[in-house]
Amino acid sequence: MRLSQFHLHTVKETPAEAEIVSHKLMLKAGMLRKLAAGLYTWSPLGLRVLRKVEAIVREEMDRAGAIELLMPTVQPRELWEETGRWEKFGNQLLKITDRKEADYCYAPTAEEVVTDFARSELASYKQLPLNFYQIQTKFRDEIRPRFGVMRSREFLMKDAYSFDLDDDGMRRSYEAMHAAYVRIFTRLGLRFRAVQADSGAIGGDASQEFHVLADSGEDAIAFSTGSDYAANIETAQAALPGPRPSPGEAMRKLDTPTQKTCEDVAALLGIDLQRTVKSIAVIGADADGKEQFVLALVRGDHDANEIKLAKVEGLANYRMATEAEILAHLGSEPGFLGPVIADGAAAQGARAPKPPIRVVADREVAAMADFVVGANEAGFHLAGVNWGRDLSEPDSVADLRSVVEGDRAADGGELRIVRGIEVGHVFQLGDKYAQAMGCTVLDEHGKPRVLKMGCYGIGISRIVAAAIEQNFDANGILWPDAMAPWRVAVCVINPKRDETVAAAAKALYRELVDAGIETVLDDRGLRPGQMFADIELIGIPHRVVVSDRGLAAGTFEYRARSAEGPENLDREALFARLR
Amino acid sequence: MRLSQFHLHTVKETPAEAEIVSHKLMLKAGMLRKLAAGLYTWSPLGLRVLRKVEAIVREEMDRAGAIELLMPTVQPRELWEETGRWEKFGNQLLKITDRKEADYCYAPTAEEVVTDFARSELASYKQLPLNFYQIQTKFRDEIRPRFGVMRSREFLMKDAYSFDLDDDGMRRSYEAMHAAYVRIFTRLGLRFRAVQADSGAIGGDASQEFHVLADSGEDAIAFSTGSDYAANIETAQAALPGPRPSPGEAMRKLDTPTQKTCEDVAALLGIDLQRTVKSIAVIGADADGKEQFVLALVRGDHDANEIKLAKVEGLANYRMATEAEILAHLGSEPGFLGPVIADGAAAQGARAPKPPIRVVADREVAAMADFVVGANEAGFHLAGVNWGRDLSEPDSVADLRSVVEGDRAADGGELRIVRGIEVGHVFQLGDKYAQAMGCTVLDEHGKPRVLKMGCYGIGISRIVAAAIEQNFDANGILWPDAMAPWRVAVCVINPKRDETVAAAAKALYRELVDAGIETVLDDRGLRPGQMFADIELIGIPHRVVVSDRGLAAGTFEYRARSAEGPENLDREALFARLR
Repeated sequence: MRLSQFHLHTVKETPAEAEIVSHKLMLKAGMLRKLAAGLYTWSPLGLRVLRKVEAIVREEMDRAGAIELLMPTVQPRELWEETGRWEKFGNQLLKITDRKEADYCYAPTAEEVVTDFARSELASYKQLPLNFYQIQTKFRDEIRPRFGVMRSREFLMKDAYSFDLDDDGMRRSYEAMHAAYVRIFTRLGLRFRAVQADSGAIGGDASQEFHVLADSGEDAIAFSTGSDYAANIETAQAALPGPRPSPGEAMRKLDTPTQKTCEDVAALLGIDLQRTVKSIAVIGADADGKEQFVLALVRGDHDANEIKLAKVEGLANYRMATEAEILAHLGSEPGFLGPVIADGAAAQGARAPKPPIRVVADREVAAMADFVVGANEAGFHLAGVNWGRDLSEPDSVADLRSVVEGDRAADGGELRIVRGIEVGHVFQLGDKYAQAMGCTVLDEHGKPRVLKMGCYGIGISRIVAAAIEQNFDANGILWPDAMAPWRVAVCVINPKRDETVAAAAKALYRELVDAGIETVLDDRGLRPGQMFADIELIGIPHRVVVSDRGLAAGTFEYRARSAEGPENLDREALFARLR
Repeated sequence: MRLSQFHLHTVKETPAEAEIVSHKLMLKAGMLRKLAAGLYTWSPLGLRVLRKVEAIVREEMDRAGAIELLMPTVQPRELWEETGRWEKFGNQLLKITDRKEADYCYAPTAEEVVTDFARSELASYKQLPLNFYQIQTKFRDEIRPRFGVMRSREFLMKDAYSFDLDDDGMRRSYEAMHAAYVRIFTRLGLRFRAVQADSGAIGGDASQEFHVLADSGEDAIAFSTGSDYAANIETAQAALPGPRPSPGEAMRKLDTPTQKTCEDVAALLGIDLQRTVKSIAVIGADADGKEQFVLALVRGDHDANEIKLAKVEGLANYRMATEAEILAHLGSEPGFLGPVIADGAAAQGARAPKPPIRVVADREVAAMADFVVGANEAGFHLAGVNWGRDLSEPDSVADLRSVVEGDRAADGGELRIVRGIEVGHVFQLGDKYAQAMGCTVLDEHGKPRVLKMGCYGIGISRIVAAAIEQNFDANGILWPDAMAPWRVAVCVINPKRDETVAAAAKALYRELVDAGIETVLDDRGLRPGQMFADIELIGIPHRVVVSDRGLAAGTFEYRARSAEGPENLDREALFARLR
């Protein structure tokens, strides 16, 4: 491609509407233009990148044995009623009424339509396994579309749906897709992690998210140095703590007049924060559904994790306790709370008569000895506290906390925490949709069997933005080779003034193209500074400058986008570098 | 591709819903599945064909210098208001309201959005010429969707829009697209015609339709044997008639008691139908907008053409005259009407006092002498009538009639009439959209200039159906090589019973694929009859059968889809044939 024949439209100003770096750079590079809230036109430059991603996704889906089809974007209400999702999907579902007053939606996903296709086309187990996919425009009517194509309303998505006779088959299909996704993101040249996800809401049996790692990512991900283990921070677990040590200290009451946080108490006492315990007062429900006062305990250096807390029995819909409730149950104000319930003035800690509170301890807390907690008395904490001696064993022990960098993982490695952008998701759906829609085939005994499905999404448009979040510098985008609009830019210095240089550049460009190296010739005749700024901004990985000086010396100036500076290479060395 | 790994789902019964052959065959071959009225899922087989067409269109658009981008399918009302099309487009425009009660439509075309893109991105004449295109899903809310993807509501379309500084540039862009379209349809292997179209309603300066020729086509097309001239039957013109001969007969009144049509009169008199003239009484408007009685005359063997009639001054909104109006103006009942207005009993034909009627003659009629018309008296006609002698010259002369097979064309050739399916359309739009939306650039003098646009559509989905309408037989589809899902099918006889045959077939398949010949291996293990029926139905152009008998003889059975019968070829001859 000759850039003079293309439409490149970079802009100098950083657009005010853009909040994140990928959105800013996509607008500055002229990859996108906003049409309306959450709706973007992909310019010729942007589309080149989008199509690169699309092509790699398609190749790897085909290689994995998935079969491409194409479903309509506009789908009838009736099918969505069959699974109850017409209502359940909520306001993200863009509903449409046609001229005959029939109801449709703009598909945000296609489980219903593909299941309808399958139940019509499949009759026998002999046709299985099958995995149908499409690369098709989707629409989600986001309440607050933002971040450009990172969270737009209309977007390009690859969605695949596997059909198997039984759970084993479903798992094999799922593993094949997982492997395909690993190949896709590897080929795209992105740093990524496959992450265990909470599949509760979708109702499937297993689910993983694929995240492109980037400091700006919305999601925190914990991964282990000891294995492939990686999980969303909401669900990541550290290794079980070791056995609880024996008590070594006597319990004693300490003056902590203004120390209301574990940090302040540890600083005052000159002890490790890890020896303190945080008490969080919440209101849950008992077995009869009656409100129950619960004290949740996590180590002083840990944070309670709301999602894990809500998984504890009785806490599904918990709320924080009010100050009045705390006073009524513990006789103290917040800042000095603890699980050692004084019976009047007796400081022995025996909980008698036991007040109606429940103690839920994090696994780490349950394994502590000689710890520090609030004394349930303003201005005082207790040190040297021990389970079973100074207070009863906790009513429940559970994983209540978010993991932190450096935690021991179950596999013996250490947990590290990174941030990521979700770009793919694989689900085992089981029979959720097939059952609701009556998608069956006859098995080898002639008996109808409800199919087991998986579904597998990749946000093609989103990958483009995520790749930028991972790969940029002060001058612009740093595309991985596989995603770049062109791999190589040949820049001509003064093509209009110097015909020899222009001809040499054109010849080099032609040679590179003939050698199968995707190249763009910047023959626009801009000043060098302006030209280089454009080529850096739009992220071309390899730049070759053709100038009269270089030609005289028999060299080309080569620079990798991420390199410190340029080097002068002769023709042979240049081709060796670019091949 | 191995068919056992694919999803092919042919059906035996002809689906009741299908009215035309392409719809029937696409359903029988399992290329499509209906989701709802005018909404179809493209099965894996169907999609392969769709993608072939898409790829050729894309290659030729790129070759012609057009630049691909991608606009949203959902477009905001505001832009459509700027051109007035939010209202004017009518009920085919699918209107959508989002969760915030903002109005959008599902784009049926994208003039507004691309013009908005251009007015934002283009500032200088130096950026021109430009031609942006996209291959994107469109939606038209047809009142009566039918014929499968021939007239579906959601469909895949290539739409391109050129931007030029002046009319000359626009015409060059238009010619480039015209040439690209010719290459596209030629490469697709279709018999087609570029046809002059009536561009009145779009308001542009010139317009041509591309039609795939097929007996079942909705449109009649006239083309000349003498040049490239082809036009929709509504607008096609024959050559101007020769000069009017001198009168040779005296006017005489003839008894035609029951002969109310030209055919009957000609038969009674034993004369050529071409010597009679048909009089059609309509009501138009005069210069002041007042109703005016008009007698339109066409030759007895010709049909008046409504579109041409409506182009005559004063007839834009014409209607047929009532019997009462005819009686009032001509004193006769229909069946015996004519332009010779008798003044009382005098048969001299002088129109005095001239009644308030206007005579509009087709060009052919104006060039006739000694013709036969109704006498405006029940049971009588006049023969030997001549202009200027028996009646005044016509008030207007115009082309009023539809051309017929065998008409002389302006280029000296003969006109032939064929039927076609419109699959592409090119328009010169002029400044229609650019003016309404303020799309300007600065010219070389620094003055703002409104851009001149062209727009160019191709119905990708429709081409697939149109190709079938043109290429089928009793056994199924006959794809041109370029559109076939696969060029070659290797059919294995008894692959499960005979391992040698299965292995030989697989080896041949591999060899063909390695030679760059797109091949499918039918290893499903069906009975030969069933297998051959499938391969014929889905239209694979070349079939190779591998059997034990053939292997023993060192030959493969080869058959072109359109050939009378098979032939046995050795390996070398087979490859020569398929290359």
